[in-house]
Formats: sequence, structure tokens, C-alpha cells
Amino acid sequence: MESALLPGIGTQVVIPVCAIVGIVFSLFQWYLVSRVKVSSERGGGASSPTNNNNKNGYGDYLIEEEEGINDQNVVVKCADIQNAISEGATSFLFTEYQYVGIFMIAFAILIFLFLGSVESFSTKSQPCTYNKEKLCKPALATAIFSTVSFLLGAVTSVISGFLGMKIATYANARTTLEARKGVGKAFIVAFRSGAVMGFLLAANGLLVLYIAINLFKLYYGDDWEGLFEAITGYGLGGSSMALFGRVGGGIYTKAADVGADLVGKVERNIPEDDPRNPAVIADNVGDNVGDIAGMGSDLFGSYAESSCAALVVASISSFGIEHDFTSMCYPLLISSMGILVCLITTLFATDFFEIKAVKEIEPALKKQLIISTALMTVGIAIVTWTCLPSSFTIFNFGAQKVVKNWELFLCVAVGLWAGLIIGFVTEYYTSNAYSPVQDVADSCRTGAATNVIFGLALGYKSVIIPIFAIAIAIFVSFSFAAMYGIAVAALGMLSTIATGLAIDAYGPISDNAGGIAEMAGMSHRIRERTDALDAAGNTTAAIGKGFAIGSAALVSLALFGAFVSRAAISTVDVLTPQVFIGLIVGAMLPYWFSAMTMKSVGSAALKMVEEVRRQFNTIPGLMEGHAKPDYATCVKISTDASIKEMIPPGALVMLTPLIVGIFFGVETLSGVLAGALVSGVQIAISASNTGGAWDNAKKYIEAGASEHARTLGPKGSEPHKAAVIGDTIGDPLKDTSGPSLNILIKLMAVESLVFAPFFATHGGILFKIF
Amino acid sequence: MESALLPGIGTQVVIPVCAIVGIVFSLFQWYLVSRVKVSSERGGGASSPTNNNNKNGYGDYLIEEEEGINDQNVVVKCADIQNAISEGATSFLFTEYQYVGIFMIAFAILIFLFLGSVESFSTKSQPCTYNKEKLCKPALATAIFSTVSFLLGAVTSVISGFLGMKIATYANARTTLEARKGVGKAFIVAFRSGAVMGFLLAANGLLVLYIAINLFKLYYGDDWEGLFEAITGYGLGGSSMALFGRVGGGIYTKAADVGADLVGKVERNIPEDDPRNPAVIADNVGDNVGDIAGMGSDLFGSYAESSCAALVVASISSFGIEHDFTSMCYPLLISSMGILVCLITTLFATDFFEIKAVKEIEPALKKQLIISTALMTVGIAIVTWTCLPSSFTIFNFGAQKVVKNWELFLCVAVGLWAGLIIGFVTEYYTSNAYSPVQDVADSCRTGAATNVIFGLALGYKSVIIPIFAIAIAIFVSFSFAAMYGIAVAALGMLSTIATGLAIDAYGPISDNAGGIAEMAGMSHRIRERTDALDAAGNTTAAIGKGFAIGSAALVSLALFGAFVSRAAISTVDVLTPQVFIGLIVGAMLPYWFSAMTMKSVGSAALKMVEEVRRQFNTIPGLMEGHAKPDYATCVKISTDASIKEMIPPGALVMLTPLIVGIFFGVETLSGVLAGALVSGVQIAISASNTGGAWDNAKKYIEAGASEHARTLGPKGSEPHKAAVIGDTIGDPLKDTSGPSLNILIKLMAVESLVFAPFFATHGGILFKIF
Repeated sequence: MESALLPGIGTQVVIPVCAIVGIVFSLFQWYLVSRVKVSSERGGGASSPTNNNNKNGYGDYLIEEEEGINDQNVVVKCADIQNAISEGATSFLFTEYQYVGIFMIAFAILIFLFLGSVESFSTKSQPCTYNKEKLCKPALATAIFSTVSFLLGAVTSVISGFLGMKIATYANARTTLEARKGVGKAFIVAFRSGAVMGFLLAANGLLVLYIAINLFKLYYGDDWEGLFEAITGYGLGGSSMALFGRVGGGIYTKAADVGADLVGKVERNIPEDDPRNPAVIADNVGDNVGDIAGMGSDLFGSYAESSCAALVVASISSFGIEHDFTSMCYPLLISSMGILVCLITTLFATDFFEIKAVKEIEPALKKQLIISTALMTVGIAIVTWTCLPSSFTIFNFGAQKVVKNWELFLCVAVGLWAGLIIGFVTEYYTSNAYSPVQDVADSCRTGAATNVIFGLALGYKSVIIPIFAIAIAIFVSFSFAAMYGIAVAALGMLSTIATGLAIDAYGPISDNAGGIAEMAGMSHRIRERTDALDAAGNTTAAIGKGFAIGSAALVSLALFGAFVSRAAISTVDVLTPQVFIGLIVGAMLPYWFSAMTMKSVGSAALKMVEEVRRQFNTIPGLMEGHAKPDYATCVKISTDASIKEMIPPGALVMLTPLIVGIFFGVETLSGVLAGALVSGVQIAISASNTGGAWDNAKKYIEAGASEHARTLGPKGSEPHKAAVIGDTIGDPLKDTSGPSLNILIKLMAVESLVFAPFFATHGGILFKIF
Repeated sequence: MESALLPGIGTQVVIPVCAIVGIVFSLFQWYLVSRVKVSSERGGGASSPTNNNNKNGYGDYLIEEEEGINDQNVVVKCADIQNAISEGATSFLFTEYQYVGIFMIAFAILIFLFLGSVESFSTKSQPCTYNKEKLCKPALATAIFSTVSFLLGAVTSVISGFLGMKIATYANARTTLEARKGVGKAFIVAFRSGAVMGFLLAANGLLVLYIAINLFKLYYGDDWEGLFEAITGYGLGGSSMALFGRVGGGIYTKAADVGADLVGKVERNIPEDDPRNPAVIADNVGDNVGDIAGMGSDLFGSYAESSCAALVVASISSFGIEHDFTSMCYPLLISSMGILVCLITTLFATDFFEIKAVKEIEPALKKQLIISTALMTVGIAIVTWTCLPSSFTIFNFGAQKVVKNWELFLCVAVGLWAGLIIGFVTEYYTSNAYSPVQDVADSCRTGAATNVIFGLALGYKSVIIPIFAIAIAIFVSFSFAAMYGIAVAALGMLSTIATGLAIDAYGPISDNAGGIAEMAGMSHRIRERTDALDAAGNTTAAIGKGFAIGSAALVSLALFGAFVSRAAISTVDVLTPQVFIGLIVGAMLPYWFSAMTMKSVGSAALKMVEEVRRQFNTIPGLMEGHAKPDYATCVKISTDASIKEMIPPGALVMLTPLIVGIFFGVETLSGVLAGALVSGVQIAISASNTGGAWDNAKKYIEAGASEHARTLGPKGSEPHKAAVIGDTIGDPLKDTSGPSLNILIKLMAVESLVFAPFFATHGGILFKIF
């Protein structure tokens, strides 16, 4: 069989170079952001460098007037608030990582023991799983290396989330200060900071994985089957951390947000983010630990898992069997190309074009999606034709299927474009520029009940097209290249992850910027500008969640397929009792999980409400602004609640595959995975879109930008109050239970894959007994 | 092979006799209810016969005092209101049946053409599907008889729903009048009326099916395979009608209910069911067309389908091959026994014990479930050992599986007991006697948002145990007797349908009774009594929905299995692209469907709100009670909205199997059925329990029966207002989208089964082209 155009040594160079380019670009963006000064020492002149920075193509013709540029007081206040938020977030993440760290070590030991026991900890080489004629490294090696890669994935995930948080808390006050100069400048700071995070994560994930593969190869040598089986631990580690990050962070942020809103906005009638509200710092900390750190870990997890799923299938296909290193690294090369494409795409937002008015924000972000997708299509073609032989075979549940390179190109491309469709549909259903959200806003006329009914209906409806897009992507990629096709389709969707993360992180940064403006007592006009950024941010956050969910669906299907192959089952027949009960119970798990997380947010919010009320009632002069509230107690309530409450849902997800696999065996586990996948995807999409729509329906009424919107407003009107209720209900849906669900489905799949050798040997003891 | 104890001729006698016993018992109950007079002619003395009726064991020691027995005015008013409700309901149902009738005829033609085309309308006998050595009747015969049985099922469903509505509107005012004498008497009238409906439906469904089988046999003779294949049309007809009944009725009732509440309770601060509210008659009509007629058709559909599913599998098992008529009729004999068991069970509620206090209502209804289940277990044993040979074979996807009679007993029993568990869990999550609903009520302290969050979480949580119960029932029955086991497990769950319907219909009747009390201006204490009945009714309604959903899950799995057998596919492998895309799209369908129905309710409610507001604003003296509102316009709005809005969701359900089958083929259709089943079941359970819990949380605050409840009340307090919002949101969830979903899953399955010969021959054209 002919080999790829790019020689193996070329691949060895290209991948790390692309990763390093990404990291350098990210650091350069950070440098640009850092030129906005928030330290009080340098004084009001601090902003002058940015003023002279014509690299952005900005000039004096920016029509928006500048506001309060020289108010030194404001800069000091902003710096203080930023510090408080950053400290709160850092301290929470450290506490969280401590608890999760203990769990991770315990789970690592479990992985070692379970996988080692497959061949009774023997150190002798054994016949390979798929090719019985060859000898492979012993199961004990798989156990050790899986454990190592699990820990590596967990640590990389921690770094991803933590760095994201650091960048976001570094950027929020800077965005506020830039908002004094106009929406366009603020947008660039927020977007650049998002890009820092996006590129750092994408490049870091790629680099660590690449290094791990090369190091593992020193031991495994030609046993690629064993090597890439062990590498899947990387995905498991990444997603396990992401689970706790999403759930813990989600509970933290929404307990604070809901609690702050219920007393502040509803009872005391003070604005959002008012510094008198004791929960306001906790709320802003929450944005950073939940929406930023949690999401960073989440998308890193998806990326790691889809790479692992593709690699493990490739290792038993002709690439692996023939030791064609370039073709083997095709998934990593796609990601490398993605970094370059996203780099160019980013320049379109920050340098080639400029934002001059509020209404240009959303189109600019949308353009990011379109440009990155269009460029990436070309990128995929280049990678495919240079790095793959024109024909090769792919492992397909026991058989080898012949695949052409153009077929694989279509697999990746269909994933990429399905992602774009999901993004657009999400935008349509969650942006207040279109009729769905406007209808929801309109239904507030008759109160909160109709608002909720319409919002839920909107979320349900928004599932339809994404599911068809996912279904088509699955059908095409599955038909062309079986499970490998699905895995690379997921990678295709995630190939523009740097851009996706940039526009996603942009949202919470803008949200925080608004909070800081309010707390620093800046003028109303500044707050309007950050609100405009934030409204677009709600939409992009929903789009980001759409990508996360869509890719999670593809990833978990690919992992599921790899699991089935590894567990040596040839079919997963719905019409067997073992599989069917798995299917129906699996479909139930997302509900169980959502019930836990929503109840957790509700209970924690109740505690927060009581504390906030207590402070308003007992601290004299608080309401009048003479006394400072006790922010720390509220931060502590959120921290304690999220640490305590993240354990049961986390345990549910982590233990289910183990319990099902051990007691009911691999067939039932297959059913559980399929059921959780097809049911979880729907709830996740509908929950995140419903929440996003409610939030923007409220913002639509508040902004009052159209005739229709003004008949519903202003703030404080009955329809607005109804909209606030919807927004509050949407909070746990869109930021806690919804986005955690995609981790649920992919984590259970990757965990099953890692433990597959154990289940195949020792699993299903209940059915064995009866 | 040995045959059953009961000879064939015995079976021919036992089934119709049991059905007739059920009908006679039902008529006797009707007679007892009719002794409460509402006509104004007979005057106040009318209630005396019931007073003397010591058959109930009631006497003077009933501690509750009698109220306003001799107020002749009240009786006249009640009669008037009852007439208005009855006329409204009758007129709506006639309109609905006209539209649906046209559809049914069109669909009947479709069935004939599609099934006839399988063998190009040939009139020659063909080799049988499962036994190629024998000759079976031509496909044209199947087409004709399927069409006939389809129409028969539809007509029976119409009769079931219509009679139920007639009985309910006959009983509501009588319940109100009896409530003057105490809760116990009112309970008996309401429950008896429910029993009339329950027995009439169960017996009628059995009898029509039995007669149809015997008539069809005149043509089919020994070709039982063809005979019972044609009989499945009966299930399709029943469920098609049920779909439109549930959706149309659901939209009708909730548009009126939500509209009436939003203006009446929230804006105008007048009580529920106040006669000044223009939507009040529409609301009460809605209870009868939605909750009663819709539910009657629904459960009849489940019953018809599970019988058909069992019969069609039996016909290709040893029962059918060896023409063992008694064993063949095992499903019908189980239902016959069910009628007798329910008859005895009913006496426990109406004659053996008595209700003396409000707190005894719920236990009495719960006892009905326990008694009927315990007795039925014995009943199943009797039927099993007298009507089945000790060993026989069951068709199991191509093979014949040997089954013992005790194994089949366990299949039926596990279904029956799973139903009881579902009932109990539902009661726990929806009754305000337990902590879940009390927690939801408590969360109203912090407003509507937390109430909604807690309510949604409760619904999600309430799914867990029922799903495990269903999974265990599936596993046991599937393992013992494949698809036949599942079908008889469903029949087991439905065997106590008469009792289930009685306690289910009791709810809306009590609800209506309360409405009539309010409208007739009866004393506050009467309203309290009917409210107490109604609170128990909310719980029983949720239990009834739980049964409907649980049985629907089993039924559709059985139908699905029969479809797969008939379509000649041997496995439904999740890991093929055709099946997987079906699975994920199928799991999406319940969301699409729910989006449509919820939006329909929301839009219709908005129209209702505008009309009610208009009347309050333009009719002088309406608010003061001097002028009568224009009830008819509100009735018309509900009617028009429901007729118009039931078409798209109806079309979605009816067309999906056809489109998928024709264009994508039977594998994808299998995936769709499995996906819709496992996803729909969860949404249906959670929606109906969330709605029930919100309703009862509101009632908990209103009743103020405990210290805790009083801290939340009274009516009009902030927590109560929040509870009302939850209740309103729950209305479309629990009465429109939730209960329609179980029809969605079973209807798609039975439709696929009926069209299976066509799909197997002509289906999947898209995949055939590419």
C-alpha cells in the first residue's frame, strides 16, 4: 500500500511546531491585552498606549464618545474588584482541586488494579487482542500507562481550566476600562482574552498528547495497539476533571447568581451586580470558575477524547498495522491545521475588521464561525491529501473496511459543517434578534407562567435541526469509515476549537466586565456597552454549548464503538433483554443527573438568599450604601455548597459504568451508553437553549431597542418581572445541568473503553450467576 | 403437546360472559349514581333515597354536618351548569370527531392501498410469512380486514371516550350535591361514576375485540397468522383516535384552564371557577373532553394494542400453529379475569368500607390499587394454570423458545406489580402528604423561580424508580418469553384497568364538582370538601398517567418486537449507521412533539386571556356579578384552537413511521421506535409528575392543613402566588404534552407493525437508490 506524501519525520516536526505557534500567538494576544493597565500606580495615562495602537485599524473616527477616561478613582476601584474576583476564583479552584485530587488518586489506583487484574498482574507478553498472531505488551503495562495517561489528562485539564480562569479574571476589568472608550475597543479586549484561552488550550492539549505518545512509544515500540489503548486514559483523565469542574463550578456560579438575583433584583429592587448585594462577588467569581474554567476543561476533554478514540481505532487499522506514522497522526495533524486556521480567523475579528456599533457585535462573532469553517475545509483537504495514502483500511467491528482518502475528507468535513449548522441554529433560537426569543419576550405580557411555557417549548423545538445535523454527520461518517469516521467527524467539529473557545470565553468576560462597571460605580452608559457585549455573549455561550454537545455526541459514539470492539461484542442488538434494559436505564440517567444538579443549585440558592437577606436586615446602612457587605460569607456558602453537592452527581457518572460493567456485563453497558447518549443530547441542547433564550428575552426587554420591546419594558414592569423569573429558572438549566450532560455521555463512554479489558474478562457477574 | 384444562368451547363462553358481567355492573353503578337527582322538578326531597340507602353501611354517625340540603335554588343552578358543561363537551367532541373522522377514512384508504400493494392486489393465496410450507390468505385480504379492524378500533375508541365524557358530565353535579351531605357521600358518587366508565371501557374493548376475532375467523378459518395480523388494525385504530383525543382535548382543556387562571386568579383576584370568569365553562368542559374522553381513548388504545401484540405473537407460536383456541385467547382471558377482580375491588371502596374523614380519601384510593393487584395475582395464577398447557413454544425472532406456564405467570405478574410500584412512586412524588411536594411548596418562599426549579428537579427525580420497575419487568418477561412475555406483562399492568380508570376518572369529576359548587354559589364548606376530593384526584390522575405510560412502554416494546419479526429483520444493531441515526432522531421526536403541543397551549391560552380581559373590560357589571359573561365565545376559542392545533402534532406522529419506513427502511424505523420509546417514557413521566406536584403544592398552601403550610399561606400571599405560577406551567405539561407522549410511542409502534409487510416489500427507497 502506498504511503502518505508527508514523511514520518515531517509529521514529527509539523505537530509540535503548530502547537508552539499556537502558544506563541496566545502569549502575544495576552501581551496585547496586558497593555490595558489596571494597576493604580501608572495612573490615567495608562490607556494611552492602546490609543496609539493603530495596528487594530482603529482610529479617531470611532464614533462613540469616550467616557470618564481620566477618572483615576474608577481604575483603582476596578483593580480592587478584579483582585477580589481573582482571589475568590483562585481560592475556590484550589479547594476544588484538593477534593478532586484525592478522588483522582483513588480512581487512578482503581484503574491500575482493575486493568492489572485482567491478566493477574502477569509481566509476560500476551497475544494481541485484535491480531492473535502477534505478541503485545502485558496487561500490566496497559494498567500502568493507562494510569499515567489518566493522571496526565487530569493535570492538563486542571491547567486548562485554571489558566482560562486566570486569563478571564485578568481581562474582565480591562474590558470594563476599555468600554469607556467605546464598544469596539472593549470588544477587542474581551475577544483577545478569549483567544488567549482558546489557543492556549488547543495547543497545550495537542502538545501534551503528542509528547505522551512519543514517550510511551519508547516502551511500547512497535506495539501500537497497546500504546494507543493506554493513551485513552488521557481522555478519561481530562473528562473526569471536566465533570467535577462543570458540576462544581456550575453549582457555585448559579447558587450565587440565583441567590443574588432573588433578593437583589426581585425583593430589594437594586440593579444586577450592585455592590451593595453581598452575593455579588460570589456571582462574579462564579462566572469564572463555572463558565470559564468548567468550559475549558470540558472542551479540552472532548478534544482529548475524540483524538484518543480516533487513535485507538487507527492503531488496529492499516495505519497501525503498517506503522505508517503520518497517517496514524492524522487526528493530530487535523488539530494542528486547526490552530493555524483559527489564528488567521482571529485576525479577522481583531485586526482586519472593526466593530463600530453595537449591532455589529453578533455578526462579527458569527463571521468568526463562518470564516473558520470555510478555511478549515480547505485545511482538512490539504491535511487529507498530504498525510493519507489514497486508499487504506479501517477496522470495522472485526472486519477491515477499505476507505479512500476523499471519503475520510468528507467524514471530517461533515463534522465541521454540522458544527456550523448547530452554531447557527443555536444562534437563531437564543439571540434576541430573531422571532423565537422575541416571542418568548412577548409571552411575558401574560406573566411568568406563559414565559416558562414558551421558553420550554422553544428549547424543545431547538433540538430538531441540530439532531438532524448530527444524524447526517453520523450517517455519512459511519457509512464511509465506521467508528474512525465518527471520531474524525468529531475532530472536524472540534478542529476550530480555538475560535470556538475564544467566542465562548468572550461571554463570561463581558458579563464580568459589566459587573465590575456596576460595582465600580461607573456611568450608566458604560454599563450599557458591556450589556450589549454580554447579550451577544449569551448567544455565543449557547453556541459554544451547542458545539460542546454536538461534538460530545459524536465523540461518545466513537468511544462507544471503540469500547464495543475492545469488549469483543459483535452486535449491540436492541432486541435482547440485556441491551434493552440498558438502553432505557441509560436514557434515564440524564434525568437523574439533572435532578441532582438542579436541586443542588436550588438548595444552595436558598441558603444564599437567607444569608443575603440576613445581611440586608442586620448590617445597618448597607441598603443606603454606607456600609460594606460581608462578601466572604457568600463566597464561602457557594464554595461549600458546590464542593459538597458535586459529589453525588459525580459519583453517579463515574460509578455507573463500573457497576453496570461489573454486575451486568458489556451488553447492558452498551445499552446504557447508547441510551444516555441519545437521551442526554436532547436534554442538554434544550436546556442550554431554553436558558439562553430566557436570558436574552430579559435583555431584549431591558434594552428596549425596538418598538415591540419598549411596549414590554421598561425595567421593573410586570412583563420584565416575568422575564426575570424565566432568566432565573434558566440559570441552572443552561449553566449547570445542561452543559454537564455532555460530559456525562462522553465520560461514561471513555470510562467504559478504558475498563473494557476488565469488563470483558471479569464483568457481568450477576448474569453469570443466574 | 398437552392442551389447556379449559376446553375451547369454555373459552368461547367465559370471555363474553365476563364482558357482559362488566357491562351489567357498570350499568348498575350508573343506576346508583342516577338516584342522586339534579333535575329541579323533583325538588329537595330528591336526596332522600340516598339517605335511606344503608347498603353503603353509612349511617347517622357520619360526623360531618350536612349543609344546605334543602336549598332548591342550588339544585336548579347545578342542573343548569351541568347542562352547559355537557352541551359544550358534546358539541366539542362532535366537532372533533368530524375532523378526525375525515382523517380516519383517508388513513383507512391508505392502509388498504399500501397493504394491498404488497402482492399487487392479487387475490391468490400465498405462502405464509413465517411458515413457508403452508398457504395463507392473500395480502389483499389482510388489507381489507386490517382496514376494517382499524375502523372498528377507531369507532370503539370514540365510543369509549364519548361514553366516559357523558358519564362524567352526568356525575359532576351529583357529586356537588352529595358534597352537601359530607365528603364520604360525595366520594362515593364520584368514585362510582369513575367505575361506570372503567367497567364500560374494559368490557366494551374486550367484547368488540372478541366479536371481531370470531367474525374474522369465518373468513380466515385456519389461517390464524393472517387473522391476527389483520386484527392489529384494531390497536392502530384505537390509538389513532386516542392521539387526537388526547392532543385535541389536552389543548382544549389547558388553553381554557391557563387562560382562566391567568386573568381570573392572577389579575382580577377572583377565585378559581368563579362564575364571573368568562372562561369558566370552557375550563370545566375541558376537564371532560381532555382528562376524561382523552384518557378513556388512551387507555383503551393501550389495552387494544397490548392484546393485539400478544395475539399476533401467539399466532406464530405453538398456540397458533396447533390451533389451541383457549391458549390463543390467554390475553383475553386475563382481561376477563381482570373485570371480575376489579368488580370485587370496587366494592371495597363503595360498600365494604366507608370514608369518614378527608384524610381517608387518599388511603382508600391507594387501597384500591393494592387490593386489585393482590387479587389479580391470584386471578392470573388461576387463568394461567387452567388456560395454558404446562409447556409450549413462543416465537422468538425466528426461533421457537420453549416456555413453561409458570414462567408466563411470572411475566404477567411482574407487569402487574411493576404497575403497582409505578403507582406508589407517583403517589409519593405528587401527593402533598409527603416531603417532595412539601419541599416544592416550601421553595415558593423565595418565589416562582425556585418553585419551578424544584418542581422540574422533582419530575426528573421521579423517573428513576419507575424506569427501574419497567426495566425489571422487561428483563424478566423478555428473558422468559421474548416479545410475548413483554406483551402479556403489559396486559398484566392493564389487567386492573377498570379500577385504574375508576380512580383516574374520579379526579376530573371531583374537579368539575368543585367548579359547579363555586359557580352555583354554594357555601365555602362545600367547596372545601370538593377541594379535598380534588387534591386526592390530582394524585390519582398522576397515578393513572403513570400506569398509562408504564404500560405504553411495555406495549410499544412488544409491538416493536412484533414489527421486527414481521419485517423480517433478525437484529436491530445499534452499531449500524441506519439504526443509530434512527435511534437519535427517534429520541428527538418527543421533544418536537412536546414543543408543538406546549406552544399550542401557550398560544391558545394567550388568545383566551385576551378574550377574558376584553369581556371584563367591556361588559359592564361583570366584575360585580350583575351581568353574565359570554361563555360561548371562550368555548369557541378553545374549540377552534384545539381543532387547528391538534393537526401538526398528530401528523408528526402518524407520518413519521410512514416516511421513515418508505424512504429509510425498516432498520432505521426500528431505531426510531426504540429511540422514541426510551426517550419519550422519561419525558412523559417527568412532565406528568412535575405538573401534579405543582398543582398539589398549590393546594397544600391553600388548604393550610399543617403548621408548615400555614407559614406559606394564605391564598394571595407571595408564596401562594408563586405556587399558582408553577401550577399554571404544569398544566400543559401534565395534561397535554406528557400524557400524549405515551400515545406517540405506542402509536408509532403499532403503525409500523400494521405497515410492516409494505415496508418490508417497498420500503427504504432512499438507501436502495444510493
